[in-house]
Amino acid sequence: MADRTIAVIGGTGDQGFGLVLRWAKAGEHVIIGSRQQQKAEDAAKKANSILGGAFTVSGMENPKAAAAADVIVMSVPFAAHVDMIKSVHDSIKPDDVFIDVVVPLSTAVGGPASTALAVWEGSAAQQAARLLPSHTKIASAFHNVVAEALQRIDREVNSDVIVCSDSQEVRKVGMELAAKIPGVRAVDGGRLENSRIVEQVTALLIGINIRYKVSDAGIRITGLPTTG
Amino acid sequence: MADRTIAVIGGTGDQGFGLVLRWAKAGEHVIIGSRQQQKAEDAAKKANSILGGAFTVSGMENPKAAAAADVIVMSVPFAAHVDMIKSVHDSIKPDDVFIDVVVPLSTAVGGPASTALAVWEGSAAQQAARLLPSHTKIASAFHNVVAEALQRIDREVNSDVIVCSDSQEVRKVGMELAAKIPGVRAVDGGRLENSRIVEQVTALLIGINIRYKVSDAGIRITGLPTTG
Repeated sequence: MADRTIAVIGGTGDQGFGLVLRWAKAGEHVIIGSRQQQKAEDAAKKANSILGGAFTVSGMENPKAAAAADVIVMSVPFAAHVDMIKSVHDSIKPDDVFIDVVVPLSTAVGGPASTALAVWEGSAAQQAARLLPSHTKIASAFHNVVAEALQRIDREVNSDVIVCSDSQEVRKVGMELAAKIPGVRAVDGGRLENSRIVEQVTALLIGINIRYKVSDAGIRITGLPTTG
Repeated sequence: MADRTIAVIGGTGDQGFGLVLRWAKAGEHVIIGSRQQQKAEDAAKKANSILGGAFTVSGMENPKAAAAADVIVMSVPFAAHVDMIKSVHDSIKPDDVFIDVVVPLSTAVGGPASTALAVWEGSAAQQAARLLPSHTKIASAFHNVVAEALQRIDREVNSDVIVCSDSQEVRKVGMELAAKIPGVRAVDGGRLENSRIVEQVTALLIGINIRYKVSDAGIRITGLPTTG
């Protein structure tokens, strides 16, 4: 999959930008998507500057970014989730993989980030599955790695990434992309519906960050085979 | 708190029995509670035999066990949760600490253990809080350590225990009891309402056990201060 292109919708945001840096550094073709062309281009310029010039992150409006990509990663605040899904809806091709990173934090309605909303469909990822074309291959992942850890590209990320999807093939793509981030171990999280648990863990980790006065609490699953 | 006595309601069950062994081995006074006096006594005899005679686990009917204890640990299947709470309701004294270990797995209604039920109050622990006397000091903990790991008393448990309570003092008691188990690190999980996330993680871990063909997947929180 050397010619794979990844579009990060919301790639100008903290976590999306961190993912952009990590994947570009790993040699992936990455497009930053934003609502505005100019903001996308500015963020791409910034990414290329941080990465040192040998990489070619580009910037596009979200629908164009999605149309140009094979893997579409949705990394936006929950308050923007539905709108952003609608904006890329018609850009998704049958073979594309869609990876949802969104966590329904209560901040979307003015609440604390250490609590989460109950989403009617069960999770943000299942909400996406309901709204996207029925052929869309959906996974959810990267909820539990914080922006700060992703953006410190000279350091390993000390966390597992739990990947959920109803398709083993799609889950594998998500796990491959997780494993591209140094320090991250990809864990098979099973069906997409399990995303409801993985998403909510983010709220728990944010509360732990607050109580322990740290900024990058993550999780590791213990007891797995070392080859896992 | 050398004279503290812990009653494990449901201490004849796999996880409860594992907790009994670990705490008795750490020098705590432990009572196994069961619906039937004889079953409680048999389990206590078995525990003392496993522990090698230097320890004195005793067995009582649940209400008597709760009445004789300072710390009441509720470790029963979710299907029995409400009944067991009612059975110890009148035995709980104002200074007692009540620690709920129960996970609302879908097995309670014939579903798979890799999924969980939504509890009206938000979690099993919050359900307990609603049903117990208003003076009860409640924490929730130990959801993510499996029976198998607890019962192998010659080996460390490779998992954190996240402890939730609305009272810092009560949370501290839960964290102390967690730290008595070799290998376990106690993590401050914040308010009791966060138990809804911690409980559901158990279903995720059970699914991971199944997919990875292991039996004791647990979790570690990363990024905490080493003294944490």
